[in-house]
Formats: sequence, C-alpha cells, structure tokens
Amino acid sequence: MLIEFRPIGILHTPYIESAPFRPDKKASGEFFIELYPEFEAALKQLEKFSHIIIFYHFSKSEHSKLTAHPPLHGKEVGLFASRSPNRINKIGINIVELKKIEKNRIYTSPTDALDGTPLLDIKPYIKDLDCFPEANNGWQDE
Amino acid sequence: MLIEFRPIGILHTPYIESAPFRPDKKASGEFFIELYPEFEAALKQLEKFSHIIIFYHFSKSEHSKLTAHPPLHGKEVGLFASRSPNRINKIGINIVELKKIEKNRIYTSPTDALDGTPLLDIKPYIKDLDCFPEANNGWQDE
Repeated sequence: MLIEFRPIGILHTPYIESAPFRPDKKASGEFFIELYPEFEAALKQLEKFSHIIIFYHFSKSEHSKLTAHPPLHGKEVGLFASRSPNRINKIGINIVELKKIEKNRIYTSPTDALDGTPLLDIKPYIKDLDCFPEANNGWQDE
Repeated sequence: MLIEFRPIGILHTPYIESAPFRPDKKASGEFFIELYPEFEAALKQLEKFSHIIIFYHFSKSEHSKLTAHPPLHGKEVGLFASRSPNRINKIGINIVELKKIEKNRIYTSPTDALDGTPLLDIKPYIKDLDCFPEANNGWQDE
C-alpha cells in the first residue's frame, strides 16, 4: 500500500549545496517557509506559538539505508536511532522558533534543510505535550 | 508532484473505536509498535534513548480542512495551529517514552493513535535538539 503526500510549500534557506548536520543557531541568512497561498487560511492563530514543528521531504536523498554513521558519533547506529535523511519514508523535521508571519511566509530560526526543500506539514510545538526535560540524548550522551 | 510513502509497521493501542484527544499518561493497556521484521536492523542503538518520536499515518481521516476546532479551545484555529488529523498531508506524531524493545516490538508510554494505525517513521527524541523549555503552549495558554 502506498500513501501519497504532496508539497504544500517550499523551505527557503541559505544552504544551496549542502546543509549543516544540525540547525546552527548562529547561522546567518534568512530562513523562511513559503506556504503555497491557497493554504494561508490554515495559519490562523499560529502566531500565538513561540515554536513550531516543520515537516519536510528529504527530496535529495536517493537511497534508504537501515544503518547510519552520524558525524558526531563515528559508530554505526540503526536508521531509527538517527536523524539521517536516507530514510525509508523521507520525512524530516525541525523544531524551530517562530519569528514572524507575513501573509504566506513564516520566518523562523535556522533549520538544517537545503534551500528549495518541499514542505509537508507545520504543527504547533506545544510545550506541555512536546518538551520532555527528563529525556536524554541517547548514544550522544556516551 | 506526489510523494509516495509506505507503512513500515503498525501501532498497537487499546483504542479500537476512538482515541483520546491527547496521549493519556494514565491509560491502561499495552502500547507497542510492531515494526515489519525486515526493518529490525534499523533499531540498533535506539534503546539508548529514553524517548522517541513516532510518525504515523492518520489513515482514518477522510478529509482535509484548513481550520479546526480543538476540544480544549472552542474557537476556530488554523489547521497548522492545531494537531487535527484532518490535515492536507496526514502525518501524525507522538513523542513517547521508550519502555523496551523486544525484537521488532517497541513498547512505549501511551499514544493517542487508533489501534492498527500505519507507522511511517521512528526518530530518536534528542533532548538537546527537541526540548525547548522556553516554548509556550500558544492559544492554549489563553
């Protein structure tokens, strides 16, 4: 069974050739989402949130691997223990600060996505639901 | 342009007819992900993480709406300011506690997904990357 999704906008970032491994909070340049105008009504009340979750398509990833070798680690970890773009279903996310909304443009803190990345969804980041201060960093804590 | 994804497993929950609006931390019954066995190798090192992000398909949602009326609020908000299942791209997420992994079964704290929900992806929840204690709850704080 296949599930079909479609782009609902485009991510604009300064990253043309390559993107950082993780969002670089000090990155310069503009980061904004261009939502296709037909969806602008769906942004109502989004400005109340300080943070949002951006869902995008790893459209430049051409293969899937069950394992990954994250730069920070050096050792092999399973795909599902990594944020590798070479996923079976190529969904990427970034949790970012929402800076301002101007019509169908949503300005955010830096992401780690390539310029032109297709947008799949936006969800509000809800502190009481999504922030777990008791969580760890998994193998990165080693 | 269409983007094709495919189920990589199934969510097992006690919710047959309807699911709660939010994960109910005190819910009884078993919550586990059955990953299709061909992907089991991709779980390597996942057990190091205390929390994971589950990506699933809102397969029972039959329509999309640009606005939503969340139960907690009463007022109309935009789709992207809500976690409504009636999305343009029907991706759902839950951030949950990882309890144990037995072969291709991943036991977690309660989700708010219906039993039989198709799994799309699993990512590690990385505290340093995903937890923003300074975030707010948007319109829910009003």
